[in-house]
Amino acid sequence: MASRSIRLAVIPGDGIGPEVVAEGLKVLEAVAPSGDLAFEQTSYDLGAARWHRTGETLPDSVLEELRGQDVILLGAVGDPSVPSGTLERGLLLRTRFELDHYVNLRPVKLFPGVKTPLADVTPEDIDMVVVREGTEGPYTGVGGVLRKGTEHEVATQESVNTAFGVERVVRYAFEVAASRPRKKLTLVHKDNVLTFAGDLYQRTLKRVGAEYPQVSTDYCHVDAATMFFVGQPQRFDVVVTDNLFGDIITDIGAAIAGGIGLAASGNVNPDRTAPSMFEPVHGSAPDIAGQGKADPTATILSVAMLLDHVGAAEAARRVEQAVSDDLAERGALGARSTSQVGDAIAKRVSG
Amino acid sequence: MASRSIRLAVIPGDGIGPEVVAEGLKVLEAVAPSGDLAFEQTSYDLGAARWHRTGETLPDSVLEELRGQDVILLGAVGDPSVPSGTLERGLLLRTRFELDHYVNLRPVKLFPGVKTPLADVTPEDIDMVVVREGTEGPYTGVGGVLRKGTEHEVATQESVNTAFGVERVVRYAFEVAASRPRKKLTLVHKDNVLTFAGDLYQRTLKRVGAEYPQVSTDYCHVDAATMFFVGQPQRFDVVVTDNLFGDIITDIGAAIAGGIGLAASGNVNPDRTAPSMFEPVHGSAPDIAGQGKADPTATILSVAMLLDHVGAAEAARRVEQAVSDDLAERGALGARSTSQVGDAIAKRVSG
Ligand SMILES: CC(C)[C@H](C(=O)O)[C@@H](O)C(=O)O
Ligand SMILES: CC(C)[C@H](C(=O)O)[C@@H](O)C(=O)O
Repeated sequence: MASRSIRLAVIPGDGIGPEVVAEGLKVLEAVAPSGDLAFEQTSYDLGAARWHRTGETLPDSVLEELRGQDVILLGAVGDPSVPSGTLERGLLLRTRFELDHYVNLRPVKLFPGVKTPLADVTPEDIDMVVVREGTEGPYTGVGGVLRKGTEHEVATQESVNTAFGVERVVRYAFEVAASRPRKKLTLVHKDNVLTFAGDLYQRTLKRVGAEYPQVSTDYCHVDAATMFFVGQPQRFDVVVTDNLFGDIITDIGAAIAGGIGLAASGNVNPDRTAPSMFEPVHGSAPDIAGQGKADPTATILSVAMLLDHVGAAEAARRVEQAVSDDLAERGALGARSTSQVGDAIAKRVSG
Repeated sequence: MASRSIRLAVIPGDGIGPEVVAEGLKVLEAVAPSGDLAFEQTSYDLGAARWHRTGETLPDSVLEELRGQDVILLGAVGDPSVPSGTLERGLLLRTRFELDHYVNLRPVKLFPGVKTPLADVTPEDIDMVVVREGTEGPYTGVGGVLRKGTEHEVATQESVNTAFGVERVVRYAFEVAASRPRKKLTLVHKDNVLTFAGDLYQRTLKRVGAEYPQVSTDYCHVDAATMFFVGQPQRFDVVVTDNLFGDIITDIGAAIAGGIGLAASGNVNPDRTAPSMFEPVHGSAPDIAGQGKADPTATILSVAMLLDHVGAAEAARRVEQAVSDDLAERGALGARSTSQVGDAIAKRVSG
């Protein structure tokens, strides 16, 4: 079979971003020859450093270049020296919205040998996928401020939810659920308070669900869901939820599955009208940047998701297996640097 | 000292509500003679049963009667037979908004002897108070639906935040923090995404904080906060947050502190322009209603908060101590019914 060339945009970003991305790419290079694919990399200088230098977060021209790529790997962006929201709204969320990443895919899986803060749980108990909506809800940026700084100030934020937007993410979640052994889909929302949006999600779940009789469905308020994540994580197989609830519950998901150093994610455009973007859930952690302390595992697992997305399922499984084996051995391996972890996993996938 | 008579409105509600309220009142009666206060009770029939009978959630006339009371004790309302949101918006939230319960006070405390789902934590690690805003944010009900049921449907929910509303809850939280040994106040929000509302909270924290130099302040994104609740609960002393984030994090709080059966809350109007309302965080649990299985402890701890609110601090401490002693012994006591738990605690406070 002829080797397929894939245009890969790399956004190392700030803080530990470049360090973990380097290990992700190391593993990608180690596994690539085993598939029928080659990656053509272009690196993009975006993040806090560029903002300080030029005041730019994501120039239109760069966005257009990104559109021409097949897939994106992002490390982390952000720095305390940049006003909160500048890079989040101007770069991260702009990319998700402009490239129509309407599925934010976040597996929550406890690998054998990984320490969880929960007592009495085993890897069988924590194995779910959260399908977080990525392009609407409270993340739209709609809202504003009136009489700022006065005693009469009013600040609003609007959650905007559309039949179009909800249906496509719910449908995707049903597809994921249908492909898994348990075939269970739980809607997480707060339909007793956010009645308009919650009702739209509920009706959509019911309507689309009629096409997936093999998938059982379930509903859970977001507040109760956080409690079940901690007390009964077995309850969940696939979860579909809005942009903000998804943000919150996937961080609890990361916590129970061994921490943010292991949590991978994909900002996916399932229609492939623009490139999808894969990134660790963690941030730029400037406090440990440059010290070789960051765990690159979340990035490496994001690379596995990226491989799946470009159709290299066999390579994706190899990376996941290598990570799983590495994690199982980790206790015995003692403290390792960022690049030692990357080397070990790269060796496993190529070996 | 002359005995003070306090008008107490009781809303037993649905499901396990009446059962747990009965135990709360039992403890209240047992402790009352020890203070200089007497309670004059009026019971209100509100909840799912009334809605089914009359279609009413909270008639204006009942609301006016409630306004004439000094304090309210609520069990739980809700039933799956009532459309989601009907009682929540029409009764619970209506009461909180109309009676200006702008502080929703939720202690998160691990009592000795209580089993937590977290490994490696002790009661010293979990002892915080969440001050949740109660009258604005995403709970306003502002929003709507356009083209319902069509492929062009749009459903919105608006978070409305005012300088007036944010300042008063932040100020209350500083007062709580100043009264505690650690004197630490953490703002939980999502100011990198919900930039307008987050910025209002941040500026208010800074401005009001200038009046409380003895209190140290801190900020944490809501997603990270959920992770820290599970991984580093020691991090928190007093937390101030908006209505929705408060709803979510206090359920994780309940989970880590031994479950929803122990979580108490107060919907407080600190200006005393209307009665405050105390209630367990849990719902009506219709699946176990009428079986004597519900744990009344959350309601009994809510009664302790109620006692504090009406100025009976000594009685409040006795109830808390009795609960603490009961919990410490619980393992040895074996399974007990709702009324056995109430009897045991009532005996301790009167003994
Ligand atoms: C950085 C922030 C904008 C982002 C989000 O809220 O989505 C992050 O928390 C995440 O989960 O990817
Ligand atoms: C029942 C519901 C309206 C309520 C809320 O969201 O505030 C409940 O979850 C709570 O925490 O008291």
